[in-house]
Amino acid sequence: MTSSPTPIDLLIEARWVVPIEPHAVVLDDHAVAVHDGAILAILPADEARAAYAPKERVVLPEHALIPGLINAHTHNPMTLLRGLADDLPLMTWLQEHIWPAEARVMGPDFIRDGVELAVAEMIRGGTTCANENYFFPDVIAATYKQMGFRAVIGLPVIDFPTPWAKTSDEYFSRALEVHESLKAEPLLTTAFVPHAPYTVSDENFIRIRDLANELDIPIHLHTHETALEVQQGKDKDGVRPFARLQKLGIVTDRLLAVHMTQLNDDEIAACAAAGVSVAHCPESNLKLASGFCPAEKLRAAGVNVCIGTDGCASNNDLDMFGEMRTAALLAKAVAGDAAAFDAAFALRAATLNGAKAIGLGDRIGSIEPGKRADLTAVRLDALETQPLYHVASQLVYATGRHQVSDVWIDGQRKLVDGELVGIDKARILSKARAWREIIASEEEA
Amino acid sequence: MTSSPTPIDLLIEARWVVPIEPHAVVLDDHAVAVHDGAILAILPADEARAAYAPKERVVLPEHALIPGLINAHTHNPMTLLRGLADDLPLMTWLQEHIWPAEARVMGPDFIRDGVELAVAEMIRGGTTCANENYFFPDVIAATYKQMGFRAVIGLPVIDFPTPWAKTSDEYFSRALEVHESLKAEPLLTTAFVPHAPYTVSDENFIRIRDLANELDIPIHLHTHETALEVQQGKDKDGVRPFARLQKLGIVTDRLLAVHMTQLNDDEIAACAAAGVSVAHCPESNLKLASGFCPAEKLRAAGVNVCIGTDGCASNNDLDMFGEMRTAALLAKAVAGDAAAFDAAFALRAATLNGAKAIGLGDRIGSIEPGKRADLTAVRLDALETQPLYHVASQLVYATGRHQVSDVWIDGQRKLVDGELVGIDKARILSKARAWREIIASEEEA
Repeated sequence: MTSSPTPIDLLIEARWVVPIEPHAVVLDDHAVAVHDGAILAILPADEARAAYAPKERVVLPEHALIPGLINAHTHNPMTLLRGLADDLPLMTWLQEHIWPAEARVMGPDFIRDGVELAVAEMIRGGTTCANENYFFPDVIAATYKQMGFRAVIGLPVIDFPTPWAKTSDEYFSRALEVHESLKAEPLLTTAFVPHAPYTVSDENFIRIRDLANELDIPIHLHTHETALEVQQGKDKDGVRPFARLQKLGIVTDRLLAVHMTQLNDDEIAACAAAGVSVAHCPESNLKLASGFCPAEKLRAAGVNVCIGTDGCASNNDLDMFGEMRTAALLAKAVAGDAAAFDAAFALRAATLNGAKAIGLGDRIGSIEPGKRADLTAVRLDALETQPLYHVASQLVYATGRHQVSDVWIDGQRKLVDGELVGIDKARILSKARAWREIIASEEEA
Repeated sequence: MTSSPTPIDLLIEARWVVPIEPHAVVLDDHAVAVHDGAILAILPADEARAAYAPKERVVLPEHALIPGLINAHTHNPMTLLRGLADDLPLMTWLQEHIWPAEARVMGPDFIRDGVELAVAEMIRGGTTCANENYFFPDVIAATYKQMGFRAVIGLPVIDFPTPWAKTSDEYFSRALEVHESLKAEPLLTTAFVPHAPYTVSDENFIRIRDLANELDIPIHLHTHETALEVQQGKDKDGVRPFARLQKLGIVTDRLLAVHMTQLNDDEIAACAAAGVSVAHCPESNLKLASGFCPAEKLRAAGVNVCIGTDGCASNNDLDMFGEMRTAALLAKAVAGDAAAFDAAFALRAATLNGAKAIGLGDRIGSIEPGKRADLTAVRLDALETQPLYHVASQLVYATGRHQVSDVWIDGQRKLVDGELVGIDKARILSKARAWREIIASEEEA
């Protein structure tokens, strides 16, 4: 008995499919059926050809198809400050370069142009979702929307005035406005982004806690980034920042704690017990000499560890392949165990764990029926990834982001054989060069 | 008064030239004049156009021209074992996977095919010289020669039989034969490669010391790679391996000590005083959880620090751009200083310091008149490297090796706009796949 093939939008046949869930599985010669932006089924390619009549069929004979990578912590407008000031002590970097540059340029144009450049770079490198953390979330959201890129729009709260808001009340009222305006957006959600324990008062943390519960959104917070931060927090409050956050009711499964290079075993256990997610940003932590996140200890304790690049002023790229590799390599040396943070876990951290951390665990992060079709295809027939013994290993330890060939977000093709779709790259580059002239001339002045 | 332009082979005009020497300099709109494989002059492009009548003129309007990168420690035949066994404890990795695989395949065909794949990958990624460390140096040398790639051919010595030699006498006699056979080769020199302190006897170290002096070649040695190695050496000899090497007269300016993750301050000072070079292999050290080389302390002490990828079984690539970045990032966190091991130093470590370490400091490693024309051009107009504030920063912290566009070795073009010249990539890939079938089937058996 044969039934007629089901009409669908898209069938992607790949040499390998890495679904992430189930864990550490690589499917040979499988296909992913996509309809209305959602994943319908994952099945052997020959069965898929019989079962479906796709409008579009994409064959990837030398490729691994993985979930789109999720950058769990970034400040994408800062892409325009890439490499502005490197190799400097942290406070010189911040106070003499980054903050003054931001003060000069921060505004809607800078934000939009920075996000556009970031989106182009992210898609080219296989990233399909960004957890955004910057001012002017309204402009950020509009830019992501216009470009069809999935993002969690951070709603900033910080205890001093910025071009975005002058008072605490204004930060909250503007946050609520932005949240409200995005309710119907298919690719955009929100999270509160209190800057850090040392820049946000108890009162504002409590307000964030209550609002985050009410709106059912995550809290995305830099914390325990450096030993100095922890020491100064302790000097001021009598307890480490993590303990203060616990007291304030912030340490829950809504919390995505970023950096976390300074953690004792009790804090790690408390993160696991509370369901906290940790955004590990290894290259930023190295570059700013912030410290070493105990990523393997967190993983072993059951904490949801995900991966972020941080902003381009401290990385200096949005390369999630590079960041996965650095995370996996560094975790082994920090743990003193070459078996730590293995390739399958690194891939999971950069996909499904990221999705869970930003409140999208039921929508993206794995190739499973019912999830949105955020997909990245990677060519593995390059010199750099041959011979090929283990797909997950090769993706994490040998693949460069330039090997990404095709990307879909919500079922829409965003990259075809390495070329961006619907993005005017020349215009984006020309704007980046124009910003460079403005920013560099003032930096030199 | 005008004189007629001098006829030369090649004039390369680049938006930026990074000569490495003088240190931390970037020349705008300069040209490099090349004749008979040597660098004649570096001068402003407009002056160069008037001064020279080149047979070939290459214009690189969006590129940085840098010295070809020098991989100061690698085992290139092992490129065929890329990713065979990852995420395993060190001894399981070596004893259950790498050594058995090597025992099954090691021989001239494996060596040749591995080096061919490595050369293709290295040229594509801007590397122009490899410091090689493996068995069958005769086959290795023949392969590099045939491909026109510059290399230092390691002459192995190890206190147990391998397919290359059975006895100490045979290791030495074969080493001398290979050395003799390469005397007239323009691109090949040699170095002794005693495997490690724990696999080479005092007697053989003394023989190596005397022969290295006689032949005037470097000694390229893995040492102080792990804490276990140092402890076991101390247990056996009563002193740390470094002290034993000092006593044996190995700690001189001929020594290129690889890994060196375990060093106290006295040992660092002794390295500086003796003129030892250190090959830092950060990604291998991380991946095998070997430890953290104190790269910034070594640099600050005046030790000649260079950079190697190690072999593809423990990295898993030959990406010197990635390795530079990892070296620069990791050194900052290890030193606790964001200003440590800056971009200019990282570039120097990957070029001129490598040249010095392998005895070629007067021939390659910088863009200076009289040096051989080993040159790498990198496109910086990609999304990933815009905007561009500082060329050295961008090369180290943001550039991917796929941005390498053109490569020359000894004045010969090896890469044109990303395409390999005179290398049959399809044949190399087909052989890599064939080796994969042989090696994987036995691995699974």
